[in-house]
Amino acid sequence: MPSASASLNGVNLRAVGALVESVRSNPAAAKTQWRSHVRWAGGFKSESRSRNQSGVPSDEPDALGGDDTAPNPVEQLLAALGNCLAVGYAANATVAGIRIDSLELELQGDIDLHTFLGLGSGNAGFEAIEVKVRLASDAPREALDQLHAKVVGTSPVGHTLGRAVPLRIDLAR
Amino acid sequence: MPSASASLNGVNLRAVGALVESVRSNPAAAKTQWRSHVRWAGGFKSESRSRNQSGVPSDEPDALGGDDTAPNPVEQLLAALGNCLAVGYAANATVAGIRIDSLELELQGDIDLHTFLGLGSGNAGFEAIEVKVRLASDAPREALDQLHAKVVGTSPVGHTLGRAVPLRIDLAR
Repeated sequence: MPSASASLNGVNLRAVGALVESVRSNPAAAKTQWRSHVRWAGGFKSESRSRNQSGVPSDEPDALGGDDTAPNPVEQLLAALGNCLAVGYAANATVAGIRIDSLELELQGDIDLHTFLGLGSGNAGFEAIEVKVRLASDAPREALDQLHAKVVGTSPVGHTLGRAVPLRIDLAR
Repeated sequence: MPSASASLNGVNLRAVGALVESVRSNPAAAKTQWRSHVRWAGGFKSESRSRNQSGVPSDEPDALGGDDTAPNPVEQLLAALGNCLAVGYAANATVAGIRIDSLELELQGDIDLHTFLGLGSGNAGFEAIEVKVRLASDAPREALDQLHAKVVGTSPVGHTLGRAVPLRIDLAR
């Protein structure tokens, strides 16, 4: 196995290694908290912000009564999963000395609108989510299969979707 | 209760009503499929696209080895939930004749990085997600509580997160 270069896949392996060492020596460093602030912008439009990043718009397609100016929330959820898996491939491939030439993910899922529209009481969300990963690399297939298994088994968004997460949604008084 | 104006809250009630009637007369019209295409852009950066919308960037913060240029995937997931709830409030308030003066949602959740970093085998995702909703309206508190219950009970992203969703993630050969 080639030694993992600091520049392989454009991943900052030194920063990742420092984080791993920090968590090893102080397990509490692994406890992270994440936030998003969403502001409604009229109709079905809204904007989210996290930390010091630019706002990200949200809207619904025409067919759902929106103005069709941005991906909608369920598309954003699929994107979050795909982006999370992409980070996982990049990080784990780099640690394993695997060069990624290109990586694309196609995500899709079905939703039955009956419940959202108030016409039923079943599952309003995705019944299942399918992801097709296309990873170009000259690494042996076995190494890529191991990489894939590791990524799927450790994805924060993947784990969040694969389990029932307690949600506490409070309307302020 | 005031009659629901076509322009209340900026919601296109005619389009929503047409969708409801379409699903009532043809239940198969409620079956919708959603997609996102994610392309890795080097390091921990990637970009997602849905339909004809602009690409949306993703990155990780410095502390996680990223270049800190965009919200990260777990922040995107929180944003998807907040944006979905915002659509739910706008749609259901409009149907109920409730005017929304402003609406903001603060979302947060904790993640333990041990599993993502390969230092453990527990839950890599959100342990729980908390949402504080601030809705300004002159509607009676009871009407807002009913609205809130309806929105929380019918949110596609909320249902997706609140259940264990089957994920099928395949590496193409």
